Amino acid sequence: MERIGFIGLGIMGVPMAGHIMGAGYSLSVFNRTKAKASGLADKGAAVLDTPAEVAKASDIIIVMVSDTPDVEQVLFGEGGVHDALEPGKVVIDMSTISAEATRSFYAKIAGKGASLLDAPVSGGEIGAINAALTIMVGGDEAVFNRCTPLLNTMGKTVTYMGPSGAGQACKMCNQVLLIGSLMGICEGFLLASKEGLDINRFIDVVSGGAAASAQLKICGEKIARRDFSPGFLMDLLAKDLEIVHQAQRANKLFSPVTALGTQIVKSVQAQDGGGRLGTQAMMLSFEKLSSHEI
Amino acid sequence: MERIGFIGLGIMGVPMAGHIMGAGYSLSVFNRTKAKASGLADKGAAVLDTPAEVAKASDIIIVMVSDTPDVEQVLFGEGGVHDALEPGKVVIDMSTISAEATRSFYAKIAGKGASLLDAPVSGGEIGAINAALTIMVGGDEAVFNRCTPLLNTMGKTVTYMGPSGAGQACKMCNQVLLIGSLMGICEGFLLASKEGLDINRFIDVVSGGAAASAQLKICGEKIARRDFSPGFLMDLLAKDLEIVHQAQRANKLFSPVTALGTQIVKSVQAQDGGGRLGTQAMMLSFEKLSSHEI
Repeated sequence: MERIGFIGLGIMGVPMAGHIMGAGYSLSVFNRTKAKASGLADKGAAVLDTPAEVAKASDIIIVMVSDTPDVEQVLFGEGGVHDALEPGKVVIDMSTISAEATRSFYAKIAGKGASLLDAPVSGGEIGAINAALTIMVGGDEAVFNRCTPLLNTMGKTVTYMGPSGAGQACKMCNQVLLIGSLMGICEGFLLASKEGLDINRFIDVVSGGAAASAQLKICGEKIARRDFSPGFLMDLLAKDLEIVHQAQRANKLFSPVTALGTQIVKSVQAQDGGGRLGTQAMMLSFEKLSSHEI
Repeated sequence: MERIGFIGLGIMGVPMAGHIMGAGYSLSVFNRTKAKASGLADKGAAVLDTPAEVAKASDIIIVMVSDTPDVEQVLFGEGGVHDALEPGKVVIDMSTISAEATRSFYAKIAGKGASLLDAPVSGGEIGAINAALTIMVGGDEAVFNRCTPLLNTMGKTVTYMGPSGAGQACKMCNQVLLIGSLMGICEGFLLASKEGLDINRFIDVVSGGAAASAQLKICGEKIARRDFSPGFLMDLLAKDLEIVHQAQRANKLFSPVTALGTQIVKSVQAQDGGGRLGTQAMMLSFEKLSSHEI
């Protein structure tokens, strides 16, 4: 069985790494804050001091951190994964980062005879806990096939999207659909409330028709009970939309939905503590700008 | 069994009226273009010459026309329904029109001791044919209860939303959610295509996650095969968004999604024949403004 490394033990990383161990793989881990590895250490994971040590001890190294610069640091910084790569090793980056940067990381890693898969996920903390993530994968198809059993321990739907960067591209586009649905929900709820409709009844009716969406299910019901706690953090959505917007600009694409979404997300971040709320807190800006609370 | 009247035999009205007859109700009908009533006449419907004659011959009169002025004409114009209303009669307006106008029509009809329900539908021609419409109802609750068996012959989900206008308010808000999802899909597809993703694979992956929506199912798959034929007409979406926007303005609500949606719909209407395409043809404007066809 291949030896697995896991770098980045946040709220997603810990349960994901747990599923890998649960499937019988041996695991070595690295996290900046070592304490977060204690649960995995109790189950037998080796807690190492640098990403390079993890890469040395592993055949496949998974990275699950926040943003493009974090991935770059873990891979190519001092004591980074790149130092210990050898032919045949595989890095799987499950963070959500730039597709363009991913392609340049892929080339550097290929230079050592190793390979990089980009495999960002959708489904949030709940999906990670339930091993029910949607995983979108870019990179070499043969490497994807080799890693499929491992990815299946964490995900419900694991799909090969194409060459390096295709997984990140898929995740970016996913976020555009998500933000469109979410903004429509906020604006629709505002009018529904002002027109005197019962929001829960409205959700029930709309859920059966042409305006139904996963966001209505995930975020709509939370908004209706004014629960703005994070399932998916506003700060992380802001980071994702920045990645999307860069790609749209580079490709000269008409992108009013992302532009509008970015502005509204920023306006929530500008409120005290807004960035640490869930994405459904976009409702707060729609309310603020209309001086009407639903 | 109550005698039913049906006014407005368009692509929705004909199958809806057919379901009513199929349930055993006697039916009299009016349509400006009489020829469209021939199929129903063959099954035994009485084809009459004015809305007033239909109202005289019926206990419950259904109206299914295009826009607020059309409903006003059918109800209160020369030879209109209002002329023949008597205490106990019910008008059910299933058109999508202004909630505010609906409330004024309700008051005029109440003045004759009759009652008006607003009962707009979602589900389009397919929903009408399959008797699977979502029907959102406003008006007096006792009148709603009386009419529920009749509405059930046409709809899968029939929900009482509140006093007069609440059905139209619900439909308006439904359209805001719909347009948000649809614009997100168009913008997401554009980036996905430019990044080299296979659109059908993208739809498959996204459909399993947090960005899934009914619009992705209904419109996304049509866009992927470049089928811009109408399920729901662009011109009718434009009309609906105008109603929505009026209500948002009257209520002083922040409404960037509807504003953006309205502009993009207009830009499709500005293309030759664009208004007669399906709503998924919003994709054409995203493509045009990016000089990139997916």
